Amino acid sequence: MIQYSFSENVSALQPSAIREILKATSMPGIIPFAAGNPAPEAFPTQTIQAISAELLQNDPVLALQYNITEGYPKLRELLKERMEAQQCFHTSFDDLIITSGAQQANELSCKALLNRGDTMFCESPSFIGSLNAFRSYGVDLVGIPMEQDGMDLDAFEEAVKAAKSPKLVYVITNFQNPTGRVMSLEKRKKLYALACRYDFIILEDNPYGDLRFAGTPIPSIKSLDTEGRVIYSGTFSKILAPGLRVGYVSAPEAIVSKITVCKQVSDVHSNIWAQAICAEFLVRTDMDLYLEGLRDIYRRKCNLMADGIRQHFSAQIKWEMPQGGLFLWCTLPDGCDIPRFCQESMDKYQIAVVPGSAFLVDETAESYSIRLNFSTPTDVQITQGIETLGRMTREFLGDTANG
Amino acid sequence: MIQYSFSENVSALQPSAIREILKATSMPGIIPFAAGNPAPEAFPTQTIQAISAELLQNDPVLALQYNITEGYPKLRELLKERMEAQQCFHTSFDDLIITSGAQQANELSCKALLNRGDTMFCESPSFIGSLNAFRSYGVDLVGIPMEQDGMDLDAFEEAVKAAKSPKLVYVITNFQNPTGRVMSLEKRKKLYALACRYDFIILEDNPYGDLRFAGTPIPSIKSLDTEGRVIYSGTFSKILAPGLRVGYVSAPEAIVSKITVCKQVSDVHSNIWAQAICAEFLVRTDMDLYLEGLRDIYRRKCNLMADGIRQHFSAQIKWEMPQGGLFLWCTLPDGCDIPRFCQESMDKYQIAVVPGSAFLVDETAESYSIRLNFSTPTDVQITQGIETLGRMTREFLGDTANG
Repeated sequence: MIQYSFSENVSALQPSAIREILKATSMPGIIPFAAGNPAPEAFPTQTIQAISAELLQNDPVLALQYNITEGYPKLRELLKERMEAQQCFHTSFDDLIITSGAQQANELSCKALLNRGDTMFCESPSFIGSLNAFRSYGVDLVGIPMEQDGMDLDAFEEAVKAAKSPKLVYVITNFQNPTGRVMSLEKRKKLYALACRYDFIILEDNPYGDLRFAGTPIPSIKSLDTEGRVIYSGTFSKILAPGLRVGYVSAPEAIVSKITVCKQVSDVHSNIWAQAICAEFLVRTDMDLYLEGLRDIYRRKCNLMADGIRQHFSAQIKWEMPQGGLFLWCTLPDGCDIPRFCQESMDKYQIAVVPGSAFLVDETAESYSIRLNFSTPTDVQITQGIETLGRMTREFLGDTANG
Repeated sequence: MIQYSFSENVSALQPSAIREILKATSMPGIIPFAAGNPAPEAFPTQTIQAISAELLQNDPVLALQYNITEGYPKLRELLKERMEAQQCFHTSFDDLIITSGAQQANELSCKALLNRGDTMFCESPSFIGSLNAFRSYGVDLVGIPMEQDGMDLDAFEEAVKAAKSPKLVYVITNFQNPTGRVMSLEKRKKLYALACRYDFIILEDNPYGDLRFAGTPIPSIKSLDTEGRVIYSGTFSKILAPGLRVGYVSAPEAIVSKITVCKQVSDVHSNIWAQAICAEFLVRTDMDLYLEGLRDIYRRKCNLMADGIRQHFSAQIKWEMPQGGLFLWCTLPDGCDIPRFCQESMDKYQIAVVPGSAFLVDETAESYSIRLNFSTPTDVQITQGIETLGRMTREFLGDTANG
């Protein structure tokens, strides 16, 4: 067999650890605390059914023919209105394009702006799917430690000063993946001020923002943008259905224009049927009421998992109650063998959890955390799985039987 | 306003000339000979409607939830069977992945294999969407002249010898875009032999192969592949519906595996609802019978356009009767101002056609050809548009009134 030589940018790129865990997760009998799927019981299936049937009845050629790269015009207009209402769209300089999920929004932002060897900054830990997208363009990824209220901005400023040409920083501002943390308003303002001072662009990824089930919403960094320094990416994956692959970017016109050219050569346009469904869904639905319903589901599932953790987990484990999103972040004592813990939870108890190291910029660095997802499992799986996992944590950490 | 600096690979990338023409084409009253859309009357809308309704009824979570990057397993199996029947899949070394249209298949093949500055070869003229995808990775694109039976392989071999590291050649083997030409079996064999001798990979793009309405099918280059040197990309865009964005790649396992990693960071997976529809369509449909029906539509429209050309076009125009696909290629006498011709046909007669130069590797080079699409326009548009265009060709070329 011949030896293939792959491009330098992607030759080192491996399927992510999460992805391998997820493959196992899809096997029957596994308790899926490792996934990042939205709650399937939250899918508005009947509404989607009705909209789809009408669309194919009334305008099949729209749903089935080629369309323009920028996306379905009606959906773009509706999203611009929503973004404007949230101060995430500045008509004086912004534009909006539909992408195949926020994944493509983030990937094309990097493709449009960065050269191989350029420095890009991100939170560490962060969403490995985005990090690998950036890596696939050969950028030099610098992880900045996460604090309770978001990225450590003092460390970040030092890193920016040390970088030859700081160009882009990637942040997940709400219910960050994997920590579930929210960047404070103070830090959002400070990060934006740094962008202006050191002349870089902020890529603000907000897939979970609508899933806030506690506390008070915080203005996005995009809403503070007066100079055109923020690329904001959003998605229908967590509020409607990820299988549709519909996301979007709101950014300064010149950047959206370049992302559009990149998207044209990537997939011409996103599935237009799905885009039309999203548009009609926005038209027909009282979104405030609908999102309240979603938040009820996520709040309840999160509370169920948190109750179990309180009751069953070793007291040596530190964990954080999120105000939204899909994830609970648990940290075991320093020195714990987390890969062994995750392997054992799978092998002995068929419970899939992700080790924190999977989200580090340097995957070989130490992490004593695990990420638990509460949206994918059923109530029974949450209750039983957390009880089992709790017993395992107490054994693993050598607690007494009643510890 | 701040100045944005874009990546070197994409900063020169502009929306293609065709794309700008297509924007005008979508205006009402324009006769669309410029598009590359499949015939909308050929969409099997009712079958798609029925499959979609049943899918959302019986398995909504499949259609709406995240799925694996490789694609819907059932669709992959069905396509592997079809590929095997056409000798386009070698179970000993091949694998198959679903992509967001063949555009993504071609783009990711380049991303997986080539570095900035690497040399890649293509037919000239060729499909500008693919060429721009390759350019977006900074590759050095070398166009090889097209002959009646495909790429000039003597010129190609010289170019390969002159290249530092020839790695990938891109060919559209059936009813090439824009020329409508077919690469002969002799040339397919010779190209494959060259690949073995000079150690490069062939990217065989076959979007139109199923739309052969005359002549005899020719084995694909992939069917000749014994060493694992051919990447074969196909699509549902021309036989089912392009709006679904479902394509695929059959290639050696190691290459498919790398494309999968690239796709994971690009869009996670393609719209899964559309993938499930394609799978069920293959199960329910007698594809031979179905494709015969499509070919009848395309044969009839092509003949209608050809009849009009015979009757109305200046005799100074050389044109080629295709055996399939979507396009008719017409060449005016040397020295003709083709950009002016295309501009006038639009401005004076609201007929959109694409100048041949839009498909050249060097868009500033001379071309005396135009591409006419017969699948998008209605019968009336074909009849009236070709009559008008014919009158215009005679005026433009100074024929006598009855010339």
